[in-house]
Amino acid sequence: MKRIKPASIPAPIVLLTDFGHLDSFVGVMKGVILTINPGAVIVDLSHGVAPQNVDHGAFLLATSLDFFPRGTIFCVVVDPGVGTDRRAVMVETGDYILVGPDNGVLWEAASRSGIKKSVHVSQSRYFLSPVSATFHGRDIFAPCAAHLSLGVPVSDFGPAVADLTARPFPKPETVGNDVRLGILHTDVFGNICLNMTGREFFSRFQDGFCLEVNGYEISDIYETYGMAPENKPFLLVSSHGYLEIAVKNQDASRNLGVTDDARIMLRKP
Amino acid sequence: MKRIKPASIPAPIVLLTDFGHLDSFVGVMKGVILTINPGAVIVDLSHGVAPQNVDHGAFLLATSLDFFPRGTIFCVVVDPGVGTDRRAVMVETGDYILVGPDNGVLWEAASRSGIKKSVHVSQSRYFLSPVSATFHGRDIFAPCAAHLSLGVPVSDFGPAVADLTARPFPKPETVGNDVRLGILHTDVFGNICLNMTGREFFSRFQDGFCLEVNGYEISDIYETYGMAPENKPFLLVSSHGYLEIAVKNQDASRNLGVTDDARIMLRKP
Amino acid sequence: MKRIKPASIPAPIVLLTDFGHLDSFVGVMKGVILTINPGAVIVDLSHGVAPQNVDHGAFLLATSLDFFPRGTIFCVVVDPGVGTDRRAVMVETGDYILVGPDNGVLWEAASRSGIKKSVHVSQSRYFLSPVSATFHGRDIFAPCAAHLSLGVPVSDFGPAVADLTARPFPKPETVGNDVRLGILHTDVFGNICLNMTGREFFSRFQDGFCLEVNGYEISDIYETYGMAPENKPFLLVSSHGYLEIAVKNQDASRNLGVTDDARIMLRKP
Repeated sequence: MKRIKPASIPAPIVLLTDFGHLDSFVGVMKGVILTINPGAVIVDLSHGVAPQNVDHGAFLLATSLDFFPRGTIFCVVVDPGVGTDRRAVMVETGDYILVGPDNGVLWEAASRSGIKKSVHVSQSRYFLSPVSATFHGRDIFAPCAAHLSLGVPVSDFGPAVADLTARPFPKPETVGNDVRLGILHTDVFGNICLNMTGREFFSRFQDGFCLEVNGYEISDIYETYGMAPENKPFLLVSSHGYLEIAVKNQDASRNLGVTDDARIMLRKP
Repeated sequence: MKRIKPASIPAPIVLLTDFGHLDSFVGVMKGVILTINPGAVIVDLSHGVAPQNVDHGAFLLATSLDFFPRGTIFCVVVDPGVGTDRRAVMVETGDYILVGPDNGVLWEAASRSGIKKSVHVSQSRYFLSPVSATFHGRDIFAPCAAHLSLGVPVSDFGPAVADLTARPFPKPETVGNDVRLGILHTDVFGNICLNMTGREFFSRFQDGFCLEVNGYEISDIYETYGMAPENKPFLLVSSHGYLEIAVKNQDASRNLGVTDDARIMLRKP
Repeated sequence: MKRIKPASIPAPIVLLTDFGHLDSFVGVMKGVILTINPGAVIVDLSHGVAPQNVDHGAFLLATSLDFFPRGTIFCVVVDPGVGTDRRAVMVETGDYILVGPDNGVLWEAASRSGIKKSVHVSQSRYFLSPVSATFHGRDIFAPCAAHLSLGVPVSDFGPAVADLTARPFPKPETVGNDVRLGILHTDVFGNICLNMTGREFFSRFQDGFCLEVNGYEISDIYETYGMAPENKPFLLVSSHGYLEIAVKNQDASRNLGVTDDARIMLRKP
């Protein structure tokens, strides 16, 4: 562990879960962390991941990671497999450490940041005791994040893992002269986030484009929602950096009848 | 006050309220605390207590307490009687200090932790001035928690209280050879938390059991939700340590038509 | 900057937005702040402002400001004009610094606290780079708040602004012998907050009153909700200090059919 941090300013522990805000689950995880490291700085990334939706958690994590300071510890609990034999894992990247279930929720974020080391979190001396069958956020992930924040090296938590579960975001597919896009995420407003970044889009489609989805043709891209006309679907580069299908002041996903497996084709005009 | 804490790592102030997240009530309480103690560490346990539901607050508090560091100050505002003559109280236990209205919301947590001292919070020099009639969270409870975190001893806040309002969780009742159980809490997913711990259950029913509720008979207990079959109610020991009635991926409370006063009988097979 | 704060106890950065809790927007803003100032103390005032509702944000801010310590930095993102030419501004008052869009959301709070200096936030060296068109909370407001918390003076962020957008709360209007009141805010419970403080009310109507709204006549004022009778609208001085129309355990706004432009007349009996 080369990162030397002044004792008074530790890197934060960031929590990302699907626990919501009605129960005390998140609060209890914080209690566990502060019991182990009273000086821990804890930040909520979101607890609004759709229940057990690993892809949603992976999206929020991967698109948020870069905005946190080096050394940040991400503790991710989107864990439909809790209590089964899915592994708990810890991944050290060039800049961050991620802890969570080995179901792919960490993959996209970790691989972008450059995976240096992965371990199977199995040293029970860093867990609460006893470990419950249903709440590893409290009993395994939170305490391991707290021990990490005290400087325990990643390799102490268990043996190296060579087969970390990969769950990359789907890539755009070239189909003849066209590109087939996939959906990474539909947000609560119905905006549809596509799997092509604005950067890639502008480098490939600088002379115009036509995007076809469910019989609709979209050929306009705007910089902001406010600039778009009413009632007409358009593209926009979202603050995450990805292309997004939107309809001003409307729910684009519902209006265009777009399902997760929709055929979305992008072509030159 | 024997607890000496290093100045840089104070014990946290934990907030538990029914204020939700739409308004600024919780934020304002934090402002009040930081005005009095700029170094306070504030943790949200939950603000999702059902409005004015003292039993819900008591359940979240009692099942969360042990996961916080010694010295933690719990500031609880579930207070349907605000503005009436209900007392504000402070309870010192072996490990914690609890502040809140004397309506029983603190009782179960405090009595488990071992009540050492209770006082009627009445020294107005520790309150905001003026004290409103409707928001004692801001005007009394938050400032008292902040003063506690600065080291003011419990006895300074008012005279001792000998008749703290008791509101113990209901206990299992023995009825002939059977045990009648009560409901402590039904969570947002419809899981029904019963008033018997897993530990007690396994010590008394190691040779099998039959639980009867609303004409349904349950005779299976699983370690995790995932292990259970579909469409068949079962028991599970929840992460709180209590027995729980669940139906996999369904709302057990609604499906079984269980009301708070349901007759739930547990017997040996 | 005269405010000298001990390094270990910085004034907090308070966040007020309409981002809600489902997405990672707020978490990302915190990451940005901690990247710039790892010692920042961040407090959530509320993220439940009704989407793009500048008046709602202004109300929560103005009624909460005084409960925070001197030197607090308020970072407000209720910003329907993001990506248009609306300015980003920073206002220094006697006690606080406020950062946000120049759409009036800061006005009432700032003017009450005494505006000392306003600047057009335009020095891009304090922004993230690149600045997105849709998320200035992350790219401009959060980083500027973080730099403020490190002691950068307000005047460094851009040129002085002489025409800060004013958006004062509506004032009571005298109409003959009567007073016409306006609505500042209707809360989630349907309580209707009026634009007259309890202090002003009691000084002008110490001998009784009659309030008329939508054909209803209200002539009772109670200190708490609990003291009021059922099914009968009444007044109360809310914890914000303003008069409020309420119906015990009911939604006053809906029950009385009150719209934002309702004619609400207050007169002596």
